[in-house]
Amino acid sequence: MEKIRVTVWNEFRHEREEGHKSGKVYPEGLHKVIAEFLSKDEGIAARTATLDEPLHGLSDEVLDNTDVLMWWGHGYHDEVSDEIVKKIQDRILKGMGLIVLHSGHYSKIFRTMMGTSCLLRWRDGDRERVWCCKPSHPIADGIPEYFEIPEEEMYGEFFDIPEPDDLIFMGWFKGGEVFRSGCTFHRGHGKIFYFQPGHEEYPVYYIPEVQKVINNAVHWVNPQHRLDGELFAPNPEALEK
Amino acid sequence: MEKIRVTVWNEFRHEREEGHKSGKVYPEGLHKVIAEFLSKDEGIAARTATLDEPLHGLSDEVLDNTDVLMWWGHGYHDEVSDEIVKKIQDRILKGMGLIVLHSGHYSKIFRTMMGTSCLLRWRDGDRERVWCCKPSHPIADGIPEYFEIPEEEMYGEFFDIPEPDDLIFMGWFKGGEVFRSGCTFHRGHGKIFYFQPGHEEYPVYYIPEVQKVINNAVHWVNPQHRLDGELFAPNPEALEK
Amino acid sequence: MEKIRVTVWNEFRHEREEGHKSGKVYPEGLHKVIAEFLSKDEGIAARTATLDEPLHGLSDEVLDNTDVLMWWGHGYHDEVSDEIVKKIQDRILKGMGLIVLHSGHYSKIFRTMMGTSCLLRWRDGDRERVWCCKPSHPIADGIPEYFEIPEEEMYGEFFDIPEPDDLIFMGWFKGGEVFRSGCTFHRGHGKIFYFQPGHEEYPVYYIPEVQKVINNAVHWVNPQHRLDGELFAPNPEALEK
Amino acid sequence: MEKIRVTVWNEFRHEREEGHKSGKVYPEGLHKVIAEFLSKDEGIAARTATLDEPLHGLSDEVLDNTDVLMWWGHGYHDEVSDEIVKKIQDRILKGMGLIVLHSGHYSKIFRTMMGTSCLLRWRDGDRERVWCCKPSHPIADGIPEYFEIPEEEMYGEFFDIPEPDDLIFMGWFKGGEVFRSGCTFHRGHGKIFYFQPGHEEYPVYYIPEVQKVINNAVHWVNPQHRLDGELFAPNPEALEK
Repeated sequence: MEKIRVTVWNEFRHEREEGHKSGKVYPEGLHKVIAEFLSKDEGIAARTATLDEPLHGLSDEVLDNTDVLMWWGHGYHDEVSDEIVKKIQDRILKGMGLIVLHSGHYSKIFRTMMGTSCLLRWRDGDRERVWCCKPSHPIADGIPEYFEIPEEEMYGEFFDIPEPDDLIFMGWFKGGEVFRSGCTFHRGHGKIFYFQPGHEEYPVYYIPEVQKVINNAVHWVNPQHRLDGELFAPNPEALEK
Repeated sequence: MEKIRVTVWNEFRHEREEGHKSGKVYPEGLHKVIAEFLSKDEGIAARTATLDEPLHGLSDEVLDNTDVLMWWGHGYHDEVSDEIVKKIQDRILKGMGLIVLHSGHYSKIFRTMMGTSCLLRWRDGDRERVWCCKPSHPIADGIPEYFEIPEEEMYGEFFDIPEPDDLIFMGWFKGGEVFRSGCTFHRGHGKIFYFQPGHEEYPVYYIPEVQKVINNAVHWVNPQHRLDGELFAPNPEALEK
Repeated sequence: MEKIRVTVWNEFRHEREEGHKSGKVYPEGLHKVIAEFLSKDEGIAARTATLDEPLHGLSDEVLDNTDVLMWWGHGYHDEVSDEIVKKIQDRILKGMGLIVLHSGHYSKIFRTMMGTSCLLRWRDGDRERVWCCKPSHPIADGIPEYFEIPEEEMYGEFFDIPEPDDLIFMGWFKGGEVFRSGCTFHRGHGKIFYFQPGHEEYPVYYIPEVQKVINNAVHWVNPQHRLDGELFAPNPEALEK
Repeated sequence: MEKIRVTVWNEFRHEREEGHKSGKVYPEGLHKVIAEFLSKDEGIAARTATLDEPLHGLSDEVLDNTDVLMWWGHGYHDEVSDEIVKKIQDRILKGMGLIVLHSGHYSKIFRTMMGTSCLLRWRDGDRERVWCCKPSHPIADGIPEYFEIPEEEMYGEFFDIPEPDDLIFMGWFKGGEVFRSGCTFHRGHGKIFYFQPGHEEYPVYYIPEVQKVINNAVHWVNPQHRLDGELFAPNPEALEK
């Protein structure tokens, strides 16, 4: 079996900012932690890419050899090149899987794929309990009825996204809010999973259930096929005369 | 304009049980309170029906003259006649609207329409905040981003229902749970709305936002047409030769 | 009751092109025909706008006073200003309804709202039969089980759109193809309806069932409320301490 | 890897009826043909069961050792025991996969799971072209944009089912109708796939694309987990004090 080629993309600025809490939690960047736990899965080959690499680490060659792109961004969405966003959209529509994490909700690529503002309610420093409301979905495989995130940024409704194709997880926040925390979307030949947990200041990506969900999601968004060439509108002869 | 003919069905046992808290909250039964606030809408003509009336108050004549049936039941689901459930299902598939309230989630008619167990997690005595996650839906018309129910029974996920066609409200409970609190389903020529608030021991149906949601839902499930005669499978000649 | 303010937007080039068949079918432009039949509905106030007007006829003032925007475009999608597309998207997310007709599937605004390529299979000169597969939906009100379009351009699957929230109509084409011909989407506070019939060379918008569907759709996408001001991400205090 | 245990259930009456065309097409019954092609997949262990076996071949022991139940029935739906239908429903809600083929649309188990009449339009002797409208779905893996069924019974809209969770295939019929031919549904912890092709008088289950779809569907509905014991409504202490 060929391995699923995952590219974990991280903005990777906060972790390097003087005195930013995230540098303590993820000294080498959260992408490294994610790539590492994914690599324990023999079916996955994970690499990383970051904003400040040339082409954000997302050359055509990298994109063409990526089955699943994972996206974490937060404070510098605007610095992502429009041209690269367009290329990513094109790959997704041809089959590449996309997993968007936490504050990636406001990334250019997610907003482009959704067509909506992707705005939400937020507040730092809360506690979350993630409930599963679609236990038959492969992304929920091995996940209990709920799991806890001791410290997390609150993300609350109204979350301006299209109605998800599958609503798998719902988040409960101690401060009084709820959120659609795990959502799937089919777009073109590709699949997308949005997963809310993962504020950079707390060690969320070390939590086993969070890792399990992300691992499951890689398998779920992994395409069974990818289109080559340009997308186009066929203009065939009539099949029936 | 013809009025929407609503039949508010209530089990109406708890309110009459010696010492049951609900008798204090709804001395004449919660159906009366619901029918009353609906009657303030000039477009609605509401009547009531209860379990202990002959045919549970749901004769063929009543059903044939009901545009929207509202259902509240709790402790005596099993006493509802299978034959009448079948007749209700038939009417819904031909267009009649159905609104199921709170513990009606486990009624025969709701379970028949859903095809699932409709089981859920529950606990008496909690506080709820109801969030709107589909503000463009007519049932959410005039409802703020959230509203509160000071005392409510907790209903929590996993709620075993089919994926709703519209998820309009999500419930947050102080005790730590979340719930899909306002859900629509299209079935045949009919529409169904499930709304979670309304434990009989608390004055939930006096809350303005709860009344507004139910009032909106009556208009939304009200059929634009209803089929006559038996449902059948047409066996026509080919349209094209 | 206030009237629904509809702006019927048309590219309005083909009808004016020397020798183009559409000029015979719609001498004053298809937008005029649509606005005219809508105006028979006392609840609707229809006006028109076209590509070659200043700002394409879509000034801020027009957009702010439009409840429902209807869009027909075909050969000159690229000439629509990106800035105006952005303004339309913003209005939709705040509540304005959008109805996209036929070749508008490839307009900038529809592709922006969908996030996909919106490509499809096509062939000129076919016959269509439109089947209703969601008779309980208000847009299907008064529409028979199927209706015919004697001459229509074939639009066939795969149609690269997000899974619709409601699939109301399915198109059958004599040449051998099928299509999701009537689809709804909820986006932000707004509603969108895509309706496939309406090739400019055939008198499709004179067909009573087509007119009825479009008329129904105006009522369905008409917002119950519209947001003012900028869309933003609230950052409130905790509701529970 | 453990094999997926599939039980292919067939009414198996038509094939044994004097002079019935299906006996020529499927001399040993269509379940045998299906079980045979599935058995070429090393990940699948297929067995069969039929109406006239004791308990219809569906003892508790068989059901408890079935990961995926496939259902073909047509003329004798009423002879299926209500008690066994109830047991199947219970297993599906706990995780067992269900694949319903062709005229199984009117089986007791499918109607129970759907909650609707499952009626449709029909006519013997037509030609079908099956179009894929969700190419990103695993059930569409390896299936071309469309495939043909030279002879098939026409099944047409309106098909009275709940809105599918995924609409994967749409059927075009030469006689002028369309149909939602491949549909998924999540129910409880289980998954359901309905697939329209397979009239018993024509050699439909020998067509490679039909076999591929059914094979894919077995993998898709195969549960990642199954619940033991009785389904129940948990009544826990508050998680938050």
